Amino acid sequence: GEQVYVGEYLVERLVQLGVTKMFGVPGDFNLGFLDFVEDHPKIDWVGNCNELNAGYAADGYARVKEGGLGVVTTTFGVGELSATNAIAGAFSEHVPVLHIVGAPSTSQQKNKPMLHHTLGDGRYDAYYRAAQQFVISAASLESKDTAAAEIDRVITECIVRARPVYLMVPTDLAYEKIPSYRLKTPINTEPPANDPDVEAFALDEIVKLIEQSKHETIILVDACAVRHGVKKEVAELVRRTGFPVYSAPMGKTSFDEQYERYGGIYVGSISHPEIKEKVESAKLILSIGALKSDFNTGNFTYHIPISRTIELHSDSLSVQFATFPGIGMKRLLPKLTARLQPFEPAAARIPVPKFELPVPTEQNEIISQAWLWPRVGQFFRPKDIIVAETGTSSFGVMEVPFPTGAVFVSQILWGSIGWTVGATLGAALAGVELGYKRTILFIGDGSIQLTVQELSVMIRSGLKPIIFLLNNNGYTIERYLHGMTRKYNDIADWKWTKLLDTLGGEEGKTCQSYRVGTKSELSKLLDDPAFAAADKIQLVELLMDPRDAPSALKRQAELSGKTNRYVAELPDAGRGEAV
Amino acid sequence: GEQVYVGEYLVERLVQLGVTKMFGVPGDFNLGFLDFVEDHPKIDWVGNCNELNAGYAADGYARVKEGGLGVVTTTFGVGELSATNAIAGAFSEHVPVLHIVGAPSTSQQKNKPMLHHTLGDGRYDAYYRAAQQFVISAASLESKDTAAAEIDRVITECIVRARPVYLMVPTDLAYEKIPSYRLKTPINTEPPANDPDVEAFALDEIVKLIEQSKHETIILVDACAVRHGVKKEVAELVRRTGFPVYSAPMGKTSFDEQYERYGGIYVGSISHPEIKEKVESAKLILSIGALKSDFNTGNFTYHIPISRTIELHSDSLSVQFATFPGIGMKRLLPKLTARLQPFEPAAARIPVPKFELPVPTEQNEIISQAWLWPRVGQFFRPKDIIVAETGTSSFGVMEVPFPTGAVFVSQILWGSIGWTVGATLGAALAGVELGYKRTILFIGDGSIQLTVQELSVMIRSGLKPIIFLLNNNGYTIERYLHGMTRKYNDIADWKWTKLLDTLGGEEGKTCQSYRVGTKSELSKLLDDPAFAAADKIQLVELLMDPRDAPSALKRQAELSGKTNRYVAELPDAGRGEAV
Ligand SMILES: Cc1ncc(C[n+]2csc(CCOP(=O)(O)OP(=O)(O)O)c2C)c(N)n1
Ligand SMILES: Cc1ncc(C[n+]2csc(CCOP(=O)(O)OP(=O)(O)O)c2C)c(N)n1
Ligand SMILES: [Mg+2]
Ligand SMILES: [Mg+2]
Repeated sequence: GEQVYVGEYLVERLVQLGVTKMFGVPGDFNLGFLDFVEDHPKIDWVGNCNELNAGYAADGYARVKEGGLGVVTTTFGVGELSATNAIAGAFSEHVPVLHIVGAPSTSQQKNKPMLHHTLGDGRYDAYYRAAQQFVISAASLESKDTAAAEIDRVITECIVRARPVYLMVPTDLAYEKIPSYRLKTPINTEPPANDPDVEAFALDEIVKLIEQSKHETIILVDACAVRHGVKKEVAELVRRTGFPVYSAPMGKTSFDEQYERYGGIYVGSISHPEIKEKVESAKLILSIGALKSDFNTGNFTYHIPISRTIELHSDSLSVQFATFPGIGMKRLLPKLTARLQPFEPAAARIPVPKFELPVPTEQNEIISQAWLWPRVGQFFRPKDIIVAETGTSSFGVMEVPFPTGAVFVSQILWGSIGWTVGATLGAALAGVELGYKRTILFIGDGSIQLTVQELSVMIRSGLKPIIFLLNNNGYTIERYLHGMTRKYNDIADWKWTKLLDTLGGEEGKTCQSYRVGTKSELSKLLDDPAFAAADKIQLVELLMDPRDAPSALKRQAELSGKTNRYVAELPDAGRGEAV
Repeated sequence: GEQVYVGEYLVERLVQLGVTKMFGVPGDFNLGFLDFVEDHPKIDWVGNCNELNAGYAADGYARVKEGGLGVVTTTFGVGELSATNAIAGAFSEHVPVLHIVGAPSTSQQKNKPMLHHTLGDGRYDAYYRAAQQFVISAASLESKDTAAAEIDRVITECIVRARPVYLMVPTDLAYEKIPSYRLKTPINTEPPANDPDVEAFALDEIVKLIEQSKHETIILVDACAVRHGVKKEVAELVRRTGFPVYSAPMGKTSFDEQYERYGGIYVGSISHPEIKEKVESAKLILSIGALKSDFNTGNFTYHIPISRTIELHSDSLSVQFATFPGIGMKRLLPKLTARLQPFEPAAARIPVPKFELPVPTEQNEIISQAWLWPRVGQFFRPKDIIVAETGTSSFGVMEVPFPTGAVFVSQILWGSIGWTVGATLGAALAGVELGYKRTILFIGDGSIQLTVQELSVMIRSGLKPIIFLLNNNGYTIERYLHGMTRKYNDIADWKWTKLLDTLGGEEGKTCQSYRVGTKSELSKLLDDPAFAAADKIQLVELLMDPRDAPSALKRQAELSGKTNRYVAELPDAGRGEAV
């Protein structure tokens, strides 16, 4: 029968799954494999500046291409280990990323010579072992007889469980020939079926509770609703029932924020008081895809009794105190929707606070955090991808209602700064493909320093994101947690408006940079149609006060301060003042 | 008795060991500990742009501060994992680096809430487990009763075994008080004693073999002679015996390259033919601190029979076919020297090829690889620190004889590109302290893109390295290995001469950049005393041919090509041409 090379098989599988971009950095153990990538007409190699950024890009790409996966290819040791943080982040945040690692040949792996990129002690399996901490599935290809099955296995797990997987491809194996017939059967990425008896039982329980609540149920959507692909199912449920909808920070834009019965972001005791009251007094809460991390729950301050909670997850369900392992929401939700009465007057009577954030009137020209976020909110358009970095940015943008169809991309559980630069690259590439209009990034001066070089890959790829760079002389979020005036929270000041030009753009032609220090300047820029059209990559440096922060961050910092113990009772009271 | 905080104890131990700089990035789990660092008058916090660069800097610092250690501090998960590659590299290349990780409090580690920077599944030990693959010793502080002993244990191992160690410090433990009396006893960093009977026996064997060789013995020095601190002992041995000395690439500058009986670099069949002949025909080879990796041995082409070899290592000895585990060279060498006759006429008669590299006469203005390296060799001065990145740079500079007291810094086994930017920062900071005159970096355009932001930390720290940036439109070393014209070997072109200014310098004042395309321009620059004085940070962009490479690299690529199997017999012959 027909034959393909193992490397070709892998690339073909990815193409079948809609992967159009592969991120990574070449190295002598993956060069041969990269030939297959470069030669395939349906996938592009996006050469990144470094592997961490490449991993971040694959993550951002996967988030926007819901239901698909992101792919990063690195080289043995030096390359793959540089991407560790990116892969661990994808694990933490439930993002399907395939990490392909070009490795020494099968015979080298057997004989273990002291090759470059090895630890020098013959432990060829050390990287694989370390990687296993951060993926749900891993394979080190060893023979052409099992290669195709192994490839299919890890890719399937990656998508079905929406988490990273690791695949080691020895140089020689990429060039072994295998039969191609398996390629005719597409990979099945459907989640496993639920046990019908358990599911039916659980459904009855849920419906009973909803009826008991007299349909005064609310829906709380979170990150995993997006990552495990039930946005549509949730929308259908809401349409049919009329239940009010709220979202957790990580679930922002999992539901249309312009929907009239969408109430905004619930984040425990940090929430807007009205939202807090409405959510916590609901008779029943249908929680979908929750990921209850500290920053996603106002430092664990949900005041919702379990007796009033139903939690739907990708692979389990809990109804009050009962748990049903293996009952996944993707298949449960449509059945639940079918069981519920069409739009109930009772549900319609539950008031939902309007989610809005008016621009405050401030009698000065300072670009304050309180003013900035609602003001840029007016700039957002449907089908914008809005990326926010950990720091004042992610806290600030959270409270802004997004237009219909806009997508929010952030990393609230993992919180690795610098991530958004790579993620913006990946998200923007996916965005172009899927018809998103603009990609807008908010990032602090501290965070961008970690991964700044990836701006050059955006330029090289012809992308046109708008980058708002909050220049506040350092790590403001950290200052609020500890050490307001400490030197370790200061950073070097760069000539931010020269960055794009230095990294390969042509200022005024292919890129444009702005330095903005007043409210009126910023308003003028935001209202400029040429700016809003985003027909070249643009960077806006915003001059801001190091001691200013969004109010949600201030509240979060107070709560964290209570649980962290940094400061001992020192005679010298000046040490490490917390704010 | 007197008490100190655990965090203070740790800082004090480092200061006792001569650590003057700590590298890293703050994060909320290490901020409290950083107060102790910032407040200590004898140690400076060097805030890096990101954690990988910080790890690289600690590595570079440790290499130059021979006998000491480098320290990098990061935060739980996101920070530490970003440094994985740097720590693994230090393991591979025998560099003593202490990795301090600020971690959640002991009670959080017990209760395992879903904190930011966690994997979301309660596995608080995952990072520690992954880290253990790349360090020789690790501790996760758990109680104030054992904290001091654990700190001492890992620091001792770090220095004695010259390899990285890992230390997790929970937020609360840093602020626990413990008795300070242990601080009065300095940490003992001497290597363990050799078994006297075995040592005496082995010494007799070695002396016998040297006598049998009629003192026609040569010495071959390698990386571990530097890392395990026997440079002085080797110099003493050579002075007394007059044996010719050669070095492996990784051992470059472990011995004065201007010494009249120093013969140059031996690298198997890639060596200069005269060197190869001399080394391989020697009657006996005393190999000191060998690390026989592929690139350090001309792809394993040593033609030296074991029967003519004595190998001294930090923790073992082999004499011909016999091995003596536990017999370390640091204590053996002085005894061996004492046993050998003073300068022997026989040894003096062994001819040693003069190690030199004349500047070739080329009838054009192109800055060729063949011309560049000997030409910059004339620019080197005693007490220069010369750093070379993996790529054409490390292969090229290898063949240049260095002045007395100059130090070579490179990563030939691990070979992680971008490493030199961080390493230069660390090396230059150590250099200033130890009275080195200049730090000179050679780096390719591809490599610098991985870690470019660390230039800004050099500027901010007031360092004045000279950076030669080889602009050859991409990954030339890779082109030689595979895919000469492949797109994946191309990179984005940056405005290199604007980098320093953009990243915080003031062009013409605190920094100076040059773009050089011809031999005469470069010669003029190198001969300019103002340039050579290096009184500000300088970057020289060298315009070079993507298809030009040092001859040693071409030979290495041929040898690697034989062992790597990238290319299948494809009908389409154009695919993946190797060169
Ligand atoms: C990789 C990584 N290193 C360190 C941290 C710790 N950290 C969290 S936020 C932050 C500062 C961010 O500063 P900036 O981007 O300037 O944000 P802003 O000033 O707007 O708060 C740091 C250092 C982290 N989260 N991730
Ligand atoms: C972290 C890491 N990623 C990838 C590689 C594979 N690699 C080795 S050399 C090289 C290219 C270096 O190019 P450049 O710095 O421009 O050097 P030159 O052109 O002078 O050879 C690459 C990508 C590596 N060694 N380390
Ligand atoms: Mg900032
Ligand atoms: Mg290059």
